[in-house]
Amino acid sequence: MLTFYNEHHAQHAPRHTLARGERVPCSEKPERADLVVAELSRRGLGQIVTPHGVPLVSLERVHTPRYLHFLRSAWSEWSNLDPRNGQQDALPSVWPIRGMRHDIEPDDFTARLGLYSMDSATPLTAGTWVAAKTGADCAVNAAHALRLGERGSFALTRPPGHHAGADHFGGGCFLNNAALAAQHLLDDGLQRIAILDLDYHHGSGTQRIFYQRKDVLFASIHADPRQDYPYYLGHADEIGEGEGLGYNMNLPLAQDATSNQWFTALESGCLKMSMFAPQALVVSLGVGSLHGAPRTHFGLTAADFLRVGERIGYLGLPTVFVFEGGAVVPELGTSVVNVLEGFETAV
Amino acid sequence: MLTFYNEHHAQHAPRHTLARGERVPCSEKPERADLVVAELSRRGLGQIVTPHGVPLVSLERVHTPRYLHFLRSAWSEWSNLDPRNGQQDALPSVWPIRGMRHDIEPDDFTARLGLYSMDSATPLTAGTWVAAKTGADCAVNAAHALRLGERGSFALTRPPGHHAGADHFGGGCFLNNAALAAQHLLDDGLQRIAILDLDYHHGSGTQRIFYQRKDVLFASIHADPRQDYPYYLGHADEIGEGEGLGYNMNLPLAQDATSNQWFTALESGCLKMSMFAPQALVVSLGVGSLHGAPRTHFGLTAADFLRVGERIGYLGLPTVFVFEGGAVVPELGTSVVNVLEGFETAV
Repeated sequence: MLTFYNEHHAQHAPRHTLARGERVPCSEKPERADLVVAELSRRGLGQIVTPHGVPLVSLERVHTPRYLHFLRSAWSEWSNLDPRNGQQDALPSVWPIRGMRHDIEPDDFTARLGLYSMDSATPLTAGTWVAAKTGADCAVNAAHALRLGERGSFALTRPPGHHAGADHFGGGCFLNNAALAAQHLLDDGLQRIAILDLDYHHGSGTQRIFYQRKDVLFASIHADPRQDYPYYLGHADEIGEGEGLGYNMNLPLAQDATSNQWFTALESGCLKMSMFAPQALVVSLGVGSLHGAPRTHFGLTAADFLRVGERIGYLGLPTVFVFEGGAVVPELGTSVVNVLEGFETAV
Repeated sequence: MLTFYNEHHAQHAPRHTLARGERVPCSEKPERADLVVAELSRRGLGQIVTPHGVPLVSLERVHTPRYLHFLRSAWSEWSNLDPRNGQQDALPSVWPIRGMRHDIEPDDFTARLGLYSMDSATPLTAGTWVAAKTGADCAVNAAHALRLGERGSFALTRPPGHHAGADHFGGGCFLNNAALAAQHLLDDGLQRIAILDLDYHHGSGTQRIFYQRKDVLFASIHADPRQDYPYYLGHADEIGEGEGLGYNMNLPLAQDATSNQWFTALESGCLKMSMFAPQALVVSLGVGSLHGAPRTHFGLTAADFLRVGERIGYLGLPTVFVFEGGAVVPELGTSVVNVLEGFETAV
């Protein structure tokens, strides 16, 4: 198991988000990755390496050039607008509702920020671009490692990625690392990739990116969007469209679902993936379903995550794991690394 | 000139909005209507009357039942969620970006609030529904007054309405008073209504509501959306679609446009309306283009607004004026009432 670690992740350290019209501390913080890297080192589960930088053109395979340009220049624009801005993260305050236009980029910075946003929980900071870009580097490097013969690799990245769409950020995500990994494998010669999203929240951005394609199967186990973020996507009747019809599978669970129900959903996802016969697998690895995590449910134990990794390992596929969500709780690191160790032992 | 005054407007008194991630005082405040009613009384420009309540079915001619149901119950839901909520206005923190679903209403209150929102500048308060509903009553009553023989009427309402769409609030607006007035005139037997939107900001909600219809011509003079709210609508190339093709006219002006350029745009709008040969006119009357108003431009004087009313009067149409935006400045009341007086004198 080769881990690509995004050493610049700590440059993205948002101070607060807005909820109920009030500032609340941001839970997507550097400590999340620190806990995982510490546990990885403690267990000595393979090498931890720094990724090579990938060209922007690789990111443009998933994200629009307009969106990437915005992300790259956003902080300097924001901090130049007003001397006070340098002291606070940028958050959107206006956005295009249904029926409004997306084809024209307004001159106004706030309006552009809103054009690319979906919530006020994703602060854009001075270090966001560097962190997100080196995170994306990890994902592409980890995917490439499979092409070089690794059975498994891990992109230990922050900020997470699976809510980011082709042209928007949200849910703490800016660049879709899982989508970038899958796309790289295709661009490097493979024909069929499966993405399994285990994060507590639906992988809304990943779904959208591949919704009309049949070369990527997307399967996601997550909290019912009627109750949980991202709210407006992730229902069971979203099965893909056009060429992609049948290549999207959502397995939403009610908030009071048990870990048994969660594992039953995992079986359904694995069955679907096996029928697709992918040549490689990308796992969006969030551990918000861990018991004791704030604002999430399902109550999986750290030991359960060992079984998760094992089940994935038995699929017998070259696999890239990409770190997604999960709040800072004592067993965050253990749970993530348990998935990797379970995968390693299932041979 | 018969004025219908929304005496409950003061129940909608938002405390703050969010801008740059910070709380700022809300500029859409009760004093706005108070200044106009004081000036109206001072000049004795016709009677000021209380509207009759109109049935919800009248509002459903413009807004979706789902949205109206949400607006009516939102405050009680919000304040029941958490005891602290009763002390603060509700503001959205998540919203559906392009590609997300609007057909399923989430259970989560915050997610529903976001489903119907387009900015964090439109706080929903304990008194919002009562104020918005009695405001809508004014608009429908003022429209009906034309059917009873009045040449001109005025709906002196708060909150404003022209940014509100069929199923969303925004820009301080909840119910689209101008659209409700126009729709009432059609439902009462007329075939062709023109809406002239003079507010500094584009009447995004009104445009959307009638965009595919040929029974309502919408013409708007406003700040270029590249620079100003609502940012994602109001460009000159939006000319209607389907049956409505050719029945939408936007006259965006750069922020540094002069009052002469503004009056040239008014001529273009009046010409377009005359060619449409409407049977009645609805004027969205905002005075943010007044010189000295904060965050708006064009520099019209209070005296200019007398000319505006006169020009409208010379169209020779039964006309409903509906109060929209314009910040609290000393000449707010004078400017609004000047439009009405200009209209009265042009016979």
